[in-house]
Parts: sequence; structure tokens; C-alpha cells
Amino acid sequence: MDNFKFHGVDTVKMAKKYGTPLYLVSEDEIRSRCEEIKSSFLNKYENTMAVYASKAFLTVDMAKIINSEGLGMDSVSGGEIFTALKSGFPMENLIFHGNNKLEEEIELAIENNIGRIVIDDVNEVKIIDEIAANNKTIQKVLVRVSPGIESDTHKYIQTAQVDSKFGVPLKDEVIDELMENLKGSKNLEFLGFHFHIGSQLLKNDTHLKAIDIIFKLMDDVKTKYGYEMKELNVGGGFGIKYTDEEPEPLSYFIDPMMKAIEENAKKYGMERPKIIIEPGRWMIGEAGMTVYKIGTVKEIPGVRTYVSVDGGMTDNIRPSLYQAKYDALVLNKYKEDKTELVTIAGKCCESGDILIWDLEVPKVERGDYLGVFSTGAYNYSMFSNYNKITRPALVMIKDGKDKVSIRRQTYKELLKGQI
Amino acid sequence: MDNFKFHGVDTVKMAKKYGTPLYLVSEDEIRSRCEEIKSSFLNKYENTMAVYASKAFLTVDMAKIINSEGLGMDSVSGGEIFTALKSGFPMENLIFHGNNKLEEEIELAIENNIGRIVIDDVNEVKIIDEIAANNKTIQKVLVRVSPGIESDTHKYIQTAQVDSKFGVPLKDEVIDELMENLKGSKNLEFLGFHFHIGSQLLKNDTHLKAIDIIFKLMDDVKTKYGYEMKELNVGGGFGIKYTDEEPEPLSYFIDPMMKAIEENAKKYGMERPKIIIEPGRWMIGEAGMTVYKIGTVKEIPGVRTYVSVDGGMTDNIRPSLYQAKYDALVLNKYKEDKTELVTIAGKCCESGDILIWDLEVPKVERGDYLGVFSTGAYNYSMFSNYNKITRPALVMIKDGKDKVSIRRQTYKELLKGQI
Repeated sequence: MDNFKFHGVDTVKMAKKYGTPLYLVSEDEIRSRCEEIKSSFLNKYENTMAVYASKAFLTVDMAKIINSEGLGMDSVSGGEIFTALKSGFPMENLIFHGNNKLEEEIELAIENNIGRIVIDDVNEVKIIDEIAANNKTIQKVLVRVSPGIESDTHKYIQTAQVDSKFGVPLKDEVIDELMENLKGSKNLEFLGFHFHIGSQLLKNDTHLKAIDIIFKLMDDVKTKYGYEMKELNVGGGFGIKYTDEEPEPLSYFIDPMMKAIEENAKKYGMERPKIIIEPGRWMIGEAGMTVYKIGTVKEIPGVRTYVSVDGGMTDNIRPSLYQAKYDALVLNKYKEDKTELVTIAGKCCESGDILIWDLEVPKVERGDYLGVFSTGAYNYSMFSNYNKITRPALVMIKDGKDKVSIRRQTYKELLKGQI
Repeated sequence: MDNFKFHGVDTVKMAKKYGTPLYLVSEDEIRSRCEEIKSSFLNKYENTMAVYASKAFLTVDMAKIINSEGLGMDSVSGGEIFTALKSGFPMENLIFHGNNKLEEEIELAIENNIGRIVIDDVNEVKIIDEIAANNKTIQKVLVRVSPGIESDTHKYIQTAQVDSKFGVPLKDEVIDELMENLKGSKNLEFLGFHFHIGSQLLKNDTHLKAIDIIFKLMDDVKTKYGYEMKELNVGGGFGIKYTDEEPEPLSYFIDPMMKAIEENAKKYGMERPKIIIEPGRWMIGEAGMTVYKIGTVKEIPGVRTYVSVDGGMTDNIRPSLYQAKYDALVLNKYKEDKTELVTIAGKCCESGDILIWDLEVPKVERGDYLGVFSTGAYNYSMFSNYNKITRPALVMIKDGKDKVSIRRQTYKELLKGQI
């Protein structure tokens, strides 16, 4: 039998060895992305930093890979900071984000000498300043601003509404209050601004528009408050391939952006700040594949054929949550002609649990294996035990060899914490 | 300070005692629902059975409450069957559903003498029959059919498409194949049909339409194959109050349905089968409240005020997933005038993590407590560790007393299973 190989391993062999559903993650692919970041950004441009947005996929193993490549990492909760700590991740390379950081999370971050905290609201300045003072430390901070660009429509709405739970809106009175708060703080070192436009971007124009807006802000802040910005964090959002997308290489985003940054720095007579990028999905999305076993094949004459797999919205909620589209292959029949159009359903007792609405496949039957591509980002990280379905095992692949990174959850573990 | 009381307990006191976010579940409310089921259905009509659809909320404590009230229970996975077993739930009162039951789940069910398995597909007949044979037992089964009624629109589409991953479509060739398979089975006792129309129904007409369709089917099957149906499982879907709904009492659904059933039985000259109902959300939804602590209050001048809480789409994904609407109160200010219109945001690093878009509240500040109503169903059960946020504690309330049912997950437990 000729089975589909994912980064050098026989996917069906993996399914039989570890059971299904099974998350496969290619370490080779992750490291290859790190190489691209180095060649297209870190080594090409001086005074730069790349941090992995770990909410996309964070395990102890992943944090170790990121660190071994010399990249920094984003965290958005105490649990992510804890995971980074347990993996031995150097705290100076960790950044803490979030629209509602809890006091105990800020304490955990500062006690462990986190590299940077990204302030998300004018009122957060005092809270972080106080906790830094209690810890007798000077905390490096950035400020996330909401540049008011709609990434969906690519419409420039600089003067329009800025409606987001994230960041400080670019309204004069808010920026003034923020700067007064920062000026009044004693234990914060304000390094610069952060923005994040959106996710899964396939065009570079919104980043370029944001650069113009943010330099105008930096110039205002310099003129009015004397702050010379040392850093600029331009976020992530670089798109990947799910189905029909043909994403550009990273340089498509980086080169014009760096050019715009240099031009803006020159225009405003500033020294170009350190530039930080935050790829998440781009680093891990295509490195993942989920392998399922096919169960019920239900043909409704004249209507549709539902092909059910042994996972679903528990291990990949993105199709239900965001109508996200995925591509897939019948792994043990991948060379056969695709003669049928079917719908791939999950096994959850929920009508909305459909993974792929229309997929061309060869004739399939119970016991075949299905591999869904590009499931590395936001699949494991959003896993739920809905229907008391256990978390799949996660196997890392490196140099054609497989290794369990997270073992399959047991039924007994489902009851953990019940008294 | 006068705080809001939920079933007799001071919600703010609970928040301080157990931390936030906190799931509160009222055992009194659950038992009161059980009483309503008895008075409106079980005790009012002979030869009836009520089973709780446990996917809405299943813990060991919940299974014990359901059993102590003499109700049966639905399960949709091996994990749910395992939980029922661990709670000492009598297996003869358990029903096993699902569009893609795995062989190992069917084995677990049959080995433990589960009461009924609901066949969802023509091909499942042989699989279940074989496993029953291997276990030298006769397995009681129902067959789920898809009666082709759209519950959303209340449009009668009896002759139109039947497009669902659940159940056997009412197409002659499929029903014929199903009956041949059942006739050919040696270890199955076919008791009758099951249907489920939809969720959160506020009108009873779709159930009534389905009754007519299903009796026609039962008559056909009797005439053609000689099967006298002993049972009819009419599912659940009875609506609850989230915001503006004013749900009718259970009798609004039950009485006209039982009348239609009696009339149909008479019309077709059948003995009225045992009637089974499967309430899930109706049993537990309003029994739950989630208590959050308010953090960042971000006023975007002229646009919107975002009030962030310390939970969000991790503990309640329904607003993001289904645009579900919830009502809430500021628990420590519930008697104050509601002067502001705010948006309640979760703390996840995700734009879509908004719990309530427009909520009228008094002037709120960091440290206030928010209670979201009707979170008993599909909140805990769909919990995810996205952003490495830990699972809240769950406290059961009975006779004004609080008791931890599930303790809060720890950071350390987030790494469970990593190798």
C-alpha cells in the first residue's frame, strides 16, 4: 500500500502506531520557517528581533525549538508564561501581551524578569508601574496602539472609528492621558509602540499604511513629550496556505515594510528603532497535519454524502468558529482518482461539527485515513473536551523520525479535579 | 454592601472564596426541573421515560443527581459513558447516541450492558450486531431518523431535502436497506425510532409535525416488515431563557405532543409506544451562572466602552461560536441605576472574544464582579485551554450552601501529558 508521506513519515503508519485522531507536527518545517526569518529579516536587517506568537501553538517542546533558534516569544497569559518558564525559555526574550492582564499574571511576569510587557490600556500603566516598584525593578514596556486600519477591507480609515478591545485608540485625549501616565511612572522604561493589524493577511499594504500612521504618532510623541522611541513592534499576521491561497514569501511583507520604515525614519529625522515582528500562524500552521480514521460513510441519495471522522470540532474548532476552510487527502488512497464529492463531518453531537463542506476524494470506506493539512495553528491550542472527547496525541517529526510530544489524554484524566 | 444572590448564596462572597472566573450551578434548580418533568410528563402519562442529554453538562455530581431523581441519561462518546460508569449510574438507564460511534466505544457500551444504542446509519446495524454477538448479548436499539423538518424556519419540508449528518434519511431505498439489515441481525432488539429536531425551540409546532411523519413511518414499517414499535424517542430541544425569551413551561411541549401521539396511535391502530424525551439545556441551562472579576475598562471616546473580564471564550465559547446572547449583572452594584452601555470582552488574545456586545450597567470599575446568567449548558462542557487559560472552579449550590464540585485547574496541569 502506498500511503501519503508527511515530511518523510508514513502517515498511515503513524496513525496505526499512535492511534487517531493524531496531531502531526513537523519540526523540520518549523526550523525551515526560522531559517526564512533569519535570511529574510534578522540577518538581512540590523537591529531586529523576531518573536513567535505562542498562542498559535505552545508546548514545552515548541518553546525549546524557538529558543534554540534564537527567537523570542510572545505570551498572553500566566499559563503561557508558566509554560515558557517550565521549558527553560530565557525570560528576557519573552513579551507579555493582553487586553486584560490580571494582577497575578503581571506579578508572575515581573517576578521572573520578563523582557517586555505590552501595555494595552492607559490605566494599565499605573498597575504595572506599581507592581514593578514592589519588585524593585524597572520594567521595559511597549504600548499597543490601535491604528484604525481595517485589514479585511484594506480600507484606510485613519480618521474613522477605532473600535477594538485591543490597544490604545489613536485619539488625542487618550494618547495625552497615556503619555502623562507614562511620564508619571517611576518603574517603567517606555521603549516604543506595538501594533497588530489582523491575521492571515495575504497582502502587505495594510502593514505599510500602519507604518505611516505609527511614525506620525512617534513624531508627535517625540515633539510633545521628548520620547525617542527605541523599538517598534509591527506584529504579525502573515498568511499561510490552507486551501487555494498562494502566500508570498516572508520577504514580500518584510522588504517593503523595512523600506517604508527607513523612509519614515529619514522623513522625521529619527534614528530607525529596533524592529520586532511577531509571526504565529506563519511559523506553525503548515507544519501541522491532523490524521483521522474514517468511520460512518452516510450517503443521502440525491443530497450529499457525509464522511465522519473520529475527531472534529474538539480538535479543530476553526471551521465551526470562523468558517475556516481546510484541504485534506485520503492518506491510504492519495494516488487514486478523486471521483466523489463528500462532506467531512466530525463526531461531535452538534450539527455544526463539519470540518470540510466539499472535498473531492476517491471512493472512501470505513477504516480509511484522512489527513487534514495546515492544522498546526489554533487546533491543539483551542482543543476542548466537548462531548468528553479526549485530546489527541501529538507527535513531532524530525529528520523522518517520529517522537511523542504530548501523549493522548485518558478517560480518567477527564475527571481530574472532580471532588 | 448588598450583593446579588444566586439561589440563596452571595455571589461576590463566592467569588472571593473560590476566585474567578467561577461557575456556579444550582442543584436546587436542577432538581426543580426534574420535579417539573415528573409532574408534567412522567407522572402524568404512563409508559414514559425522561433522559438527560448529558453533553450539555456532565460531571460525576451531575450524573448522581440525575440518577437520584430516577431519570435516565444520554451519552455521545466513550468519555461520557466512562463518566456515567464512574458515577455509579445504572447502565440500563443510559442511551448511546452519535453519528460516528467508534468500535471501541460500542464495545465499552455493550460490555457494560448499556440500556439502548441509537443507530444513526444503515451500516451501523452490522457493526453493533457483531459486537453484541461477540459479547453474547442481545442489545436493545433504536434508530435515529431525520424527519426533514427545518426547525429554524418552521417550514414543512417533508418531501424536500434531508441534509444532516445525523440519522437515517427518510428515503424509501435507505429505509428498506435499514430494515433488511435489522431483519438480518441476530443480536439486536429493535425497539423503535428516535428523532431530534433542533435546539432551543420556543414553539411546539415542529415536534407536532415530526410526530405525524414518524407515525407514518412506523405504520409503513409495521405493514412492510411486521415490526411493532415499542418505543418512540422524541428528543429534546426545549428552549430556555437567555435574554428576552419567555419560555413556556414543559407542559406546553408535552401535552399537545402526547395528544398528537395518542391520536396517531389510534389512527394507525397501534398500541401507543413508550415515549422518551431527552432534555439537556432545559435541565441545566438556567441553573448556571458564571461569575467574573472586571479588569480593564477601556473607554474609546465616541465609539464604545470595552469592559474586560477575567474569562471569556475559553469558559463560554457560545457567543463567538453561535452569536449566542447572554444577560448579565454587575453583582456588587446590581441595585444601582444602569447608566452606561458597554461591551463585555473576554481576556483571550482574539478579537472575536466578546461575551456580550451591548449591556446596560451602572458605572463600573476594575474590581467589580459580573455575573452572566444561564451559563449552565454548553459552557463548562465546551471549555478550552486556549491561551493556556485554566479551567474555572465549579461550585454547586444546594439549600443556600456551596460546595466545590470541580476545583480550579492548575498551571501545572496544563502541561499534563507532555513528554
